[in-house]
Amino acid sequence: MQAEIITIGDEILIGQIIDTNSAWIAQQLNAIGIRVKQISSVADYPADILVALTLASGRADLILVTGGLGPTQDDVTKQTLSAYFDCGLRRAPEVLAHVEAIFQRGNRPMLEMNRKQADVLEKSEVLFNEMGTAPGMWILHKGKPYVIMPGVPFEMKHIMQERVLPRLRNLEGRVPVWHHTLLTAGIGESFLAEKIADIEAALPPHIHLAYLPKPGLVRLRLTAIGEDLEKLKQETQTIAARLEERIGNYFLADRDTTLEQLIRDFMQERELLLATAESCTGGNIARLITSLPGSSSMFEGGAVTYSNAMKQALLGVNPETLEQHGAVSEETVREMAVGAKTNFRTDYAIAVSGIAGPEGGTPEKPVGLVWIAVAGKDQVVARKHLFGQDRAINIERSSAAALWMLWQLLQAESDSNQAG
Amino acid sequence: MQAEIITIGDEILIGQIIDTNSAWIAQQLNAIGIRVKQISSVADYPADILVALTLASGRADLILVTGGLGPTQDDVTKQTLSAYFDCGLRRAPEVLAHVEAIFQRGNRPMLEMNRKQADVLEKSEVLFNEMGTAPGMWILHKGKPYVIMPGVPFEMKHIMQERVLPRLRNLEGRVPVWHHTLLTAGIGESFLAEKIADIEAALPPHIHLAYLPKPGLVRLRLTAIGEDLEKLKQETQTIAARLEERIGNYFLADRDTTLEQLIRDFMQERELLLATAESCTGGNIARLITSLPGSSSMFEGGAVTYSNAMKQALLGVNPETLEQHGAVSEETVREMAVGAKTNFRTDYAIAVSGIAGPEGGTPEKPVGLVWIAVAGKDQVVARKHLFGQDRAINIERSSAAALWMLWQLLQAESDSNQAG
Repeated sequence: MQAEIITIGDEILIGQIIDTNSAWIAQQLNAIGIRVKQISSVADYPADILVALTLASGRADLILVTGGLGPTQDDVTKQTLSAYFDCGLRRAPEVLAHVEAIFQRGNRPMLEMNRKQADVLEKSEVLFNEMGTAPGMWILHKGKPYVIMPGVPFEMKHIMQERVLPRLRNLEGRVPVWHHTLLTAGIGESFLAEKIADIEAALPPHIHLAYLPKPGLVRLRLTAIGEDLEKLKQETQTIAARLEERIGNYFLADRDTTLEQLIRDFMQERELLLATAESCTGGNIARLITSLPGSSSMFEGGAVTYSNAMKQALLGVNPETLEQHGAVSEETVREMAVGAKTNFRTDYAIAVSGIAGPEGGTPEKPVGLVWIAVAGKDQVVARKHLFGQDRAINIERSSAAALWMLWQLLQAESDSNQAG
Repeated sequence: MQAEIITIGDEILIGQIIDTNSAWIAQQLNAIGIRVKQISSVADYPADILVALTLASGRADLILVTGGLGPTQDDVTKQTLSAYFDCGLRRAPEVLAHVEAIFQRGNRPMLEMNRKQADVLEKSEVLFNEMGTAPGMWILHKGKPYVIMPGVPFEMKHIMQERVLPRLRNLEGRVPVWHHTLLTAGIGESFLAEKIADIEAALPPHIHLAYLPKPGLVRLRLTAIGEDLEKLKQETQTIAARLEERIGNYFLADRDTTLEQLIRDFMQERELLLATAESCTGGNIARLITSLPGSSSMFEGGAVTYSNAMKQALLGVNPETLEQHGAVSEETVREMAVGAKTNFRTDYAIAVSGIAGPEGGTPEKPVGLVWIAVAGKDQVVARKHLFGQDRAINIERSSAAALWMLWQLLQAESDSNQAG
């Protein structure tokens, strides 16, 4: 079974928002054996929406549409769908009651515009939306299911999880797809490919290998398509084991995860505490860690020390060090790491100081220069990086490099403790 | 002139990555009067790529393709393009020299796979890529330009800015499009629509109004299409002025910006300093502010105090307050804000403490409960919020609410200072 996702909204086509819904929907569909053949984004114009629906119905067995169901008049989706499915609208009483209740709770008067949110396609079943005023709809048209959902991400996710995925799991014709992802670090894409070339060349035709590089990491994804899901799992498991053995030291994890998740799990298990001391990354490392549920068990907290005064006050960096070597230097970043570890009473601390840009560079210390230090149980390691000109990329790469240094030190000190 | 963007890659269709390239490309094209008619994402399968190219060439005057130009063998794009454009590949000497230089600098041996990166379509002009090994290509085919670029965002952006946009600016047939965006806050989408209904109803047919809600904000975007760019600018300016007057207190800015940018500019101009004290937002507010160039002029730094010990040590929160009222309480968050302002010697400080979830809720203090305080020159304001169950959304909404409270206090204290 193949699906197509259509996202509707001028805001996508002028680049005012990034479409995150499609990726999330695609993940959910893949997990239950529905392949996404295409994602199409079109504007809030009836003709474009109609063409997209018609082409999608020719390519796919299931069509999912998001966006364009808001109360304001830029949303032409419902009228267009009414034309496409050749049916009128009906006001759904259960939705109207829900919308009215939301307005009563908020103590706000209700407008006719809001009542219209309860209008659904006559032919459709309502996909009730507890999280908002725009309901989803499920329509069977010429033998194919269409799923219509609002574009607000958390409303769409709620409707998918509670109403759509349970229905899709009951559909026939899903061809099992299995993904098995390996995480590697410290080796470039080409070298990794060279290292595993013979394993890749020997893959059976129904199993496909993809390389997905990210800052500091390369993910290897095996995709297997076939009739028997259990067999696909076994086959990819066997290949993954062979790859893991070959990749050796560069192998990081046997699943699709992130460095911060690996660190959280590793530290949680060993009851180790972490602190951060960030200058140019400005809180991004703390954010990456605290975005994970359960991070409070291993993350004590951190300091974002943009000014020298803060570096001294919170981290105990010596004013002479700052004077002699500057804020972006090995000496300062080492003192930041040790200061964070000591003052915040943790087992490990990450410190980053650099020039993210676009301003602030000098010939000796150009934009993109970043010093990173990690203080561990027995040692402090520091490394210099020279990234590029783009502020956002410098912050992202500095964060990835800092987490990778922490991971390596965690491994090294864990190994040495076991040895000793 | 209408364009279509095609992004190629299995990783998009299984939802492993979010396509951010399309939004960025769409922004750039819109800014020079090229409308994007559709964005299509297809897998690394030759047949799907060929169909997407064929359909796009029927819909659009300009086709931009990203992705699938990496060195490893999952990248079938070049072979497929070779078939579509009916021409072979040639090895571009200037690209080969560049790739060789990159490998020499990195002191890495070069593989045949890497040399192949220098292969380009015979018919194409090379779009040189200083930032990576995969060159872009520009091909005129049946009268329409095709732009082929690698999918790595910073490489694609570099090629677009340096090579593609200058060429596109010289193309004929661009119909001027002008966007004028207004930012509002503190009012819901429906009420805003009701408030400005008559202005919206009176818009001429070539000017369109869209509502774009975000956490805590609604953007209003006027889109004008016509022959005379200067006239479009004037027309939207006149309508924007009328909207601004009508929107009154809910009006925030006369351009597409963010709350953190408004805060940075406002504080920078008045030489005011800010500090943050974050618990449940885990550094996200600091990150939002420091993601902006020049934020170091108004952001002193912050503390991410996940533990009670850190709240006491860095922010001087009274242990008795924590004991009596708990970490998520008005009393604690007020002490956090005052502590940050005092200890970090700033004019303003934001403090947030809440239960982001999914764990940690109790009947009295459920997941989603967040206390926010802002300490200003003369006063400290605190507010309670009850968000939802989703950790990521709670962090996002808490951050937006905190920035909005800071903005309001900045305005209030600025007004009262002017008055006094």
